Amino acid sequence: MTKGRLEAFSDGVIAIIITIMVLELKVPEGHQWADLKPLIPKFLAYIFSFIYIGIYWNNHHHLFQTVKKVNGSILWANLHLLFWLSLMPVATEWIGATRFAENPVAAYGIGLIMCAVAYTILENLIIKHEGEDSQLKEAIHSKSKEYISIACYVLGFATSFFYPYIAIGFYYIVALIWLIPDRRIEKSLREN
Amino acid sequence: MTKGRLEAFSDGVIAIIITIMVLELKVPEGHQWADLKPLIPKFLAYIFSFIYIGIYWNNHHHLFQTVKKVNGSILWANLHLLFWLSLMPVATEWIGATRFAENPVAAYGIGLIMCAVAYTILENLIIKHEGEDSQLKEAIHSKSKEYISIACYVLGFATSFFYPYIAIGFYYIVALIWLIPDRRIEKSLREN
Amino acid sequence: MTKGRLEAFSDGVIAIIITIMVLELKVPEGHQWADLKPLIPKFLAYIFSFIYIGIYWNNHHHLFQTVKKVNGSILWANLHLLFWLSLMPVATEWIGATRFAENPVAAYGIGLIMCAVAYTILENLIIKHEGEDSQLKEAIHSKSKEYISIACYVLGFATSFFYPYIAIGFYYIVALIWLIPDRRIEKSLREN
Amino acid sequence: MTKGRLEAFSDGVIAIIITIMVLELKVPEGHQWADLKPLIPKFLAYIFSFIYIGIYWNNHHHLFQTVKKVNGSILWANLHLLFWLSLMPVATEWIGATRFAENPVAAYGIGLIMCAVAYTILENLIIKHEGEDSQLKEAIHSKSKEYISIACYVLGFATSFFYPYIAIGFYYIVALIWLIPDRRIEKSLREN
Repeated sequence: MTKGRLEAFSDGVIAIIITIMVLELKVPEGHQWADLKPLIPKFLAYIFSFIYIGIYWNNHHHLFQTVKKVNGSILWANLHLLFWLSLMPVATEWIGATRFAENPVAAYGIGLIMCAVAYTILENLIIKHEGEDSQLKEAIHSKSKEYISIACYVLGFATSFFYPYIAIGFYYIVALIWLIPDRRIEKSLREN
Repeated sequence: MTKGRLEAFSDGVIAIIITIMVLELKVPEGHQWADLKPLIPKFLAYIFSFIYIGIYWNNHHHLFQTVKKVNGSILWANLHLLFWLSLMPVATEWIGATRFAENPVAAYGIGLIMCAVAYTILENLIIKHEGEDSQLKEAIHSKSKEYISIACYVLGFATSFFYPYIAIGFYYIVALIWLIPDRRIEKSLREN
Repeated sequence: MTKGRLEAFSDGVIAIIITIMVLELKVPEGHQWADLKPLIPKFLAYIFSFIYIGIYWNNHHHLFQTVKKVNGSILWANLHLLFWLSLMPVATEWIGATRFAENPVAAYGIGLIMCAVAYTILENLIIKHEGEDSQLKEAIHSKSKEYISIACYVLGFATSFFYPYIAIGFYYIVALIWLIPDRRIEKSLREN
Repeated sequence: MTKGRLEAFSDGVIAIIITIMVLELKVPEGHQWADLKPLIPKFLAYIFSFIYIGIYWNNHHHLFQTVKKVNGSILWANLHLLFWLSLMPVATEWIGATRFAENPVAAYGIGLIMCAVAYTILENLIIKHEGEDSQLKEAIHSKSKEYISIACYVLGFATSFFYPYIAIGFYYIVALIWLIPDRRIEKSLREN
């Protein structure tokens, strides 16, 4: 099976996810700048989630650069990732509407963690499917980025119940680490 | 006519269908975990429909792997399938909002049955268009999956008026049967 | 310039147009079959518009089969068609919400006419761009379908102010004429 | 890295942006023509933004015609452009709902300016990535269109606080300048 439609379908779903979040930015009743004030936390939540979904799209794009063929398990692992990504708009709305309250930020963290878990499952299934000479396996042999991310997510989730803004800080560190698309894959692609 | 745009359009429509269902998960007013409680039936309905739409996308993907050319009838049979799939978000909302009440679950079952009918029509038209040496025809010569599905749908629809949860159980069995993408097609593709 | 992205973008926009119409089918409050009754006119309007948008997608698909290169004018003529198509969900909502009242049906007819006009402009620009040996020009040399359509639209628009259901009937005749994708193009493609 | 998925993802996001704006055209309660009156400013705002987003899609399409390979920076610059474009539906709603009031028109202008800035960054990163023999660089060596646009945006933003309709006029001039897809690129493509 070719990867073309998996990429096209994923592009479609991620494009919709990233765009429907903007529907939550409801237009204010009045026409004064002050009327925009209640939108500020929602706007910040939107920016933050836009970057996160953007990171996932970027890394998804890099991930499938190395893939040649897909099978049924990879299709489902990909749908599993899309499922958790599809919940991010809801979590984004909740943190925006409650001005980054404790529980919503914790729920947002769970969402991010589940996306990361789903991404890792997808990555592992691809490596397994490609077998010993997997270009992807070779490209990501050092897992330091993954370990730091897990640590930040755990710290973020734990602090979200007490200091939600610090929790957002930890999630932000993960975003910064992955903002730069996986250069390991780019490097590996150039060498091969 | 080439199949490229039919696939792209179907991917787009299915991507939107699978994603707009999440819009029904309205964010709670408060910021307590308890505020999420009314979302639970809607969330379960979302997961269930996500899996079902995912199955249809997967099987659509497999179905068109074997297709080389399409004609006007296939385009319309495909639109017919997309029509019934597009009603699934509405049916999902209804079972979620009524906490899996009798009539909504029956309506949901009708929706699933119509999708299955539309899929079968599409499959048959493709086989007819490809003629005697159809790779698809050869791949799905045993129709046991189809027969068990029909039986489960009939049983599910009948029980939905009395025990809607058991009806969901029957629909779930169909999902499990088809969760694994049609290996008959994968097998046939490998052999040819 | 290649036509690939024009097709992909059009597929995306038409896929969204055809799917957001279903958002208007708001789920009823109750869980009785009778609660679905107010949805009936909206559902009929949805089916009707789904078929119409489907026809446009089908014919768009056929139209660009013959096209090899596009230019700036064709890009804009295509966007012009998408603009009028994007208003169909609004017109559909209006006829559904008012149970096919006079003015809404007339407005719906104007929408259909503008789509037809935009489609004709697009067709002519493609023929002009392709020059004398245009395969499309040859394929559609008999314009009888176009003339019957214009007559039906005019009759439909005129009767909509008195007998809106008869107007819908006239629009329906146009749909039936075009339901079958343009066999002239299919035939011409086979011969070349 | 190939540009295929970047184009597909951008097409998806822009298709959604251009189409969700129509959701704001809420259907009137009644069925008289007069009931459509409150929709007029929203409809004008819709047309205006549809053209603007259409221009961006057209130019994006032209821009990537010359591109052969993309890197991480280009992916992010593209997402940055999509981010600002995704805010246009919100700005469109605001000017439509307030009948082109001062502050909303100014906010709309900021949105347009940020899109233009993001587009310029993307253009420059592509030229930098392609190096000395960049076909794009050669194609757009005269920057007069860009300079007139900046002047119009500045004038538009400044006048929006006093005469919002004149501000819209200035934004409209920019639209007219760019309505014709970048012939410089078309010309350069033909010559090479």
